[in-house]
Amino acid sequence: MTEESLDARLARIRLAAFDVDGVFTDAGFTLGSDGSDRVRFNTRDGMGIRVLLEAGIRVVLISGRRSGAVARRAAELGIDRHLSGVSDKREALAEIRVEEGMSRDETLFCGDDLQDLAAFAESGVAVAVADAAPEVRERADLVLERAGGSGAVRELAERLLRARGEWESVVRRYAGEKL
Amino acid sequence: MTEESLDARLARIRLAAFDVDGVFTDAGFTLGSDGSDRVRFNTRDGMGIRVLLEAGIRVVLISGRRSGAVARRAAELGIDRHLSGVSDKREALAEIRVEEGMSRDETLFCGDDLQDLAAFAESGVAVAVADAAPEVRERADLVLERAGGSGAVRELAERLLRARGEWESVVRRYAGEKL
Amino acid sequence: MTEESLDARLARIRLAAFDVDGVFTDAGFTLGSDGSDRVRFNTRDGMGIRVLLEAGIRVVLISGRRSGAVARRAAELGIDRHLSGVSDKREALAEIRVEEGMSRDETLFCGDDLQDLAAFAESGVAVAVADAAPEVRERADLVLERAGGSGAVRELAERLLRARGEWESVVRRYAGEKL
Amino acid sequence: MTEESLDARLARIRLAAFDVDGVFTDAGFTLGSDGSDRVRFNTRDGMGIRVLLEAGIRVVLISGRRSGAVARRAAELGIDRHLSGVSDKREALAEIRVEEGMSRDETLFCGDDLQDLAAFAESGVAVAVADAAPEVRERADLVLERAGGSGAVRELAERLLRARGEWESVVRRYAGEKL
Repeated sequence: MTEESLDARLARIRLAAFDVDGVFTDAGFTLGSDGSDRVRFNTRDGMGIRVLLEAGIRVVLISGRRSGAVARRAAELGIDRHLSGVSDKREALAEIRVEEGMSRDETLFCGDDLQDLAAFAESGVAVAVADAAPEVRERADLVLERAGGSGAVRELAERLLRARGEWESVVRRYAGEKL
Repeated sequence: MTEESLDARLARIRLAAFDVDGVFTDAGFTLGSDGSDRVRFNTRDGMGIRVLLEAGIRVVLISGRRSGAVARRAAELGIDRHLSGVSDKREALAEIRVEEGMSRDETLFCGDDLQDLAAFAESGVAVAVADAAPEVRERADLVLERAGGSGAVRELAERLLRARGEWESVVRRYAGEKL
Repeated sequence: MTEESLDARLARIRLAAFDVDGVFTDAGFTLGSDGSDRVRFNTRDGMGIRVLLEAGIRVVLISGRRSGAVARRAAELGIDRHLSGVSDKREALAEIRVEEGMSRDETLFCGDDLQDLAAFAESGVAVAVADAAPEVRERADLVLERAGGSGAVRELAERLLRARGEWESVVRRYAGEKL
Repeated sequence: MTEESLDARLARIRLAAFDVDGVFTDAGFTLGSDGSDRVRFNTRDGMGIRVLLEAGIRVVLISGRRSGAVARRAAELGIDRHLSGVSDKREALAEIRVEEGMSRDETLFCGDDLQDLAAFAESGVAVAVADAAPEVRERADLVLERAGGSGAVRELAERLLRARGEWESVVRRYAGEKL
């Protein structure tokens, strides 16, 4: 696939689905002796989700692990669909896609590890973070330059908006410059 | 702008305003299942704020996110103005500047991401941390060598005091050497 | 020892024992003023343990420090033997090995620091993480490419399954591809 | 000073005093909205303190910040002198030194930032971590290869024991090898 054709495919995306651990984070998570969990998020990824939502792209989180902290962050970012404790990500993504009335070509999935591979089959564009497992990077249409937790989500958001030709106007709007 | 003229402009700064997430931190913040937040600060940045305050420079924090942890740290460092939950940073900075009786040339703003761009217009010197978004770095008068959370605030404090010709005497005072 | 013979030895392993601090983690751990501890784990290491257990390899944790957080994680991963507060790791490993009916050649130990050296004597294959102490790396049969907390456990799991010729089928199973 | 003479000076050290933030840690510390603090320690540094104490060297912590987490860790490591909230580190070190009956030549101080400079004057050997402020590195007799929180304390412990010719026997003892 050439860069041109990938951008054309990215421009069609209307549903962006993300794994959480290893994509929004660096694969680390903190466990306390009381069983509570804490997750370290990146504010710049939050900015990326914000501009995706402002552009009218649907955002969904599909996570294998259950985490109260992830649920909090999803709510904070205005993400209304957050599936956790998912064992079969392909099935979960297929259901959401159909419910939302999206074709496979309009659906993107971004992951990092073996359990994300099945969801790639449901996705028009399969994306891997820079530090994904080699088997995941090999099967992805797009391998990001940034690792999970280091702005990978932000990079992907910008890439999607550039493919739609909307990034420059987003920047100018935030800078208070004339459009 | 040459290095000389930037130093001359830095020497005029009497009000230093900072974004928090991504400037005092590496853009990461930790969220717990109970909704509490935790922020990881850098003691060397704290040292930077201390020498700025000792030099009589006013320090202000302007943050988009509300965080009890940031409020605690601001108090600990003796920063008496900390605005949080700010949606329009340009407006916030303009108000503070006028209240404090500072001209635009006496005001500096340091940020890292798109939502900080608007505040640059209110600032005599616009500063970006090393790992700021490219759009922010491009519009900054000064791009620091250090990333957010890795001593960027300390680097900027030292740079300001050097521009005023006061850094060496600060070091000698701390070392207990003759001034 | 040649690579071939090491792989042959790895293929015989049926009991994999791990130190925790510095192996599952980057040697850092967080202590609160209330004495509670928190440990930062890596989800990709969790994936590694999962495939080891699915392959029928016994997994044991042997830790010098007592930590409620480690106990939680062990349970989450389905590791049923977790010894903590161990002062003599050689003795602990020898007992487990005998109870489980394993020969020394079927036993592997993975560690990072001086207190792990004694357990190497009970192990058919002694493994050190990339950032282990030099004295540990020197005495190890296998030095991993990844550091503790950065996927070292995952790397070792993959290495063991490759030595058994099972890795490709694990990947294909997760990808939902034909076996 | 040649390496030889530095080793001779290190071999005389009987009291090792350490700053905490930026030496045992990477300068980061975590603050919660409830005002509680958490500090991320390194188990390998803990091993370093353990071998120093086993070798009969007195270990003291002198910290500017008050932290319940640091007090916990000091107790865990068997460090019986931990001064916190210290504003004048030179005075604090001088008092301890005299109480312990140590000469200046028998005393070492390890720090990272401006507020540690004054204590250097009370020390036979002044040590800076790799990422200390340039002004601190310049005034140190020994600049470590490792940064604060990344094993700097462990490196210094090993260096002290090597200077005394005791390191190899420590390793052999832990490995269970013949001495």
